[in-house]
Amino acid sequence: MMTPETGGNLQRDEGSSAATVKPKRGGLEGVVAATTALSKVEGTAGRLIYRGYNIHDLARTTSFEEVAYLLWFGHLPDRAELVDLKVRLVAERNIPRAVLQVLRELPPTTEPMDALRTVVSAWGATTIKGKPTVDQAIAVTARFPLFLAAFHRIRNGSEPLGSEPELGHAANYLYLLSGQVPKEEHVKALDAYLVLLADHGMNASTFTGRVVASTESDIVSAVVAALGALKGPLHGGAPSKVLDMLQAIGTTERAEGWLRDAMARGERIMGFGHRVYKTEDPRAEELRELSRLADPQEFVLARRVEELALALLEEQKPGRRLYTNVEFYSAVLLASVGLPGDLFTPTFAVSRVAGWTAHILEQIGNNRLIRPEAEYTGPNEAQFVPLDER
Amino acid sequence: MMTPETGGNLQRDEGSSAATVKPKRGGLEGVVAATTALSKVEGTAGRLIYRGYNIHDLARTTSFEEVAYLLWFGHLPDRAELVDLKVRLVAERNIPRAVLQVLRELPPTTEPMDALRTVVSAWGATTIKGKPTVDQAIAVTARFPLFLAAFHRIRNGSEPLGSEPELGHAANYLYLLSGQVPKEEHVKALDAYLVLLADHGMNASTFTGRVVASTESDIVSAVVAALGALKGPLHGGAPSKVLDMLQAIGTTERAEGWLRDAMARGERIMGFGHRVYKTEDPRAEELRELSRLADPQEFVLARRVEELALALLEEQKPGRRLYTNVEFYSAVLLASVGLPGDLFTPTFAVSRVAGWTAHILEQIGNNRLIRPEAEYTGPNEAQFVPLDER
Repeated sequence: MMTPETGGNLQRDEGSSAATVKPKRGGLEGVVAATTALSKVEGTAGRLIYRGYNIHDLARTTSFEEVAYLLWFGHLPDRAELVDLKVRLVAERNIPRAVLQVLRELPPTTEPMDALRTVVSAWGATTIKGKPTVDQAIAVTARFPLFLAAFHRIRNGSEPLGSEPELGHAANYLYLLSGQVPKEEHVKALDAYLVLLADHGMNASTFTGRVVASTESDIVSAVVAALGALKGPLHGGAPSKVLDMLQAIGTTERAEGWLRDAMARGERIMGFGHRVYKTEDPRAEELRELSRLADPQEFVLARRVEELALALLEEQKPGRRLYTNVEFYSAVLLASVGLPGDLFTPTFAVSRVAGWTAHILEQIGNNRLIRPEAEYTGPNEAQFVPLDER
Repeated sequence: MMTPETGGNLQRDEGSSAATVKPKRGGLEGVVAATTALSKVEGTAGRLIYRGYNIHDLARTTSFEEVAYLLWFGHLPDRAELVDLKVRLVAERNIPRAVLQVLRELPPTTEPMDALRTVVSAWGATTIKGKPTVDQAIAVTARFPLFLAAFHRIRNGSEPLGSEPELGHAANYLYLLSGQVPKEEHVKALDAYLVLLADHGMNASTFTGRVVASTESDIVSAVVAALGALKGPLHGGAPSKVLDMLQAIGTTERAEGWLRDAMARGERIMGFGHRVYKTEDPRAEELRELSRLADPQEFVLARRVEELALALLEEQKPGRRLYTNVEFYSAVLLASVGLPGDLFTPTFAVSRVAGWTAHILEQIGNNRLIRPEAEYTGPNEAQFVPLDER
């Protein structure tokens, strides 16, 4: 039974003939759009788990491949299962000629997220048929680093490199970008980054992917859609701004003055605050230590800016308790392992595509079309006048 | 205040620390995800309006360009405004060389929806910067027919044609596909089809586009995402199956036996029933008459199949009252104007991109990130075991 007052976050849309409910806060905040066994974000406790495993354990001990296995198959792999997945990922490390040609057609000034969206779509167009499968999830996840590195090298006037089969997912990505076998600290930092960002509940890009999958569309259509959402500055599209800020500050001595000036001008300090976390993001804690590992010298400035920003934000808005978010040390870490700022968000996608594809498979495993309502606010009866009489 | 029982379509998620609500029906059915002044679907009354104008008036009297103007600018254009929009659409009728080259790289067997998703993405990558604007909405809408016709001609081994500036949007599309100046009845039927399908409340593809736009991503990312959702058979991806059915039936004499056999085998009869409409879809009524206009001979079989299917469905499930949906006569109409079955869903997109872009502009005009919650159903405390001990 529908009652006129539903209380809480919802109110009934009295104008609708069906039992329509309207969440009060907008943006579907607090509304459950799907069930998932993949990850849980506890915003108040500052806790993130993937299939029951605490993100701290995973970040410190597992590789991206292990976590992708966990998300896709539901349990952590034993050694044989992990070897098997790695073999399958390595076997997918190739780009069809026509798809590479699509990358070559894009101007060097193309935004990397646009290039990635296009090349993933082109690859799907030439390759993917039928309903989403875990084989397809592996195939698309394996190729994200290849697509990005190929685009990066082509835009810089060099040729894409072939993968090194003995290198893991993170190491091979760094190798494909630079042509150098990467430093161990950089591989460890990037691998843990890829673990940390792989899934995060019903975020906007994951939700986008699930909506597309719920129409029974294909896995690449859903991943391409998710990429479009991740590109947005309100979601994944802003970490390079943290780098811009750190570069503008330049030295620890200049940090306090720079931050005070920026705040006096009403500018937002990048890398602090999150819609869900009401305490420190557990990923930020891990990324902080990994940034220290990846480049101890660069870390000094970042840490000083973080401490000052937190103190000044508390000074400016006492009790509001803004915390360091995942973007701040993502930017520091990715810069420290040698990535240019415009590859930060695409590299976020290199990680998150594991979560997206796991969510897509989960969605179609027990599917119902995701099709909400809109509240109509336009006129109800406009008098139509033909063109000749307008 | 949140009460434990919210009643109606919702129940509280007791396990969540925040005030989380869980719609009972799933798929966000009956949940208002956004407000819109663009269109209203009254499922029980069988009424569809765009900005207050009844779809019947619009379909019978206005062109696609007029309706696109209405959706983008909020009122029906006078003659000068309409001429201005037409000039702007005609000015956008070109495909950059690199983007055409991307189309040439795709295999001829590529699904047209995948080709369209890829070429729109590539065009956006080379062209679109910054926040969504109505100029961009015009630019992308103008190019959908060009992209599709170019792909269709390339896959058939012929060269894409240049547009004819004096032809309207619908007529130019038919011309670009065939190289022939189209028949007046075909132009009228297709133009009205484009009017009828241009918007439809918070359907899955429009919702997808709005979610992407809500991250402050770009218009092409949002449109590409919407294309991925439209491709799904539960949304826009199935009209060609109606054509397959009509072709399999072949003649009016065979219709009853074919339908009875299919229903006895438990097969779904394509083109009947809709999640929202509990009466005849008002678009189906218009499309029926337009199909008759476009090809009176082909119409005879379709009409006979429709009548029989409705009677047999009522016989099989008395009182369930399934009605002809928009797919049935969309398929008949599009086949009658000369389109192959695999261009039906992409042609739906030629129309709907006007609505998508209007929704994207509306979303960012008063934006809040669309970011729902998930209910976590996995384990809460899994004992982590390092790889060496697994």
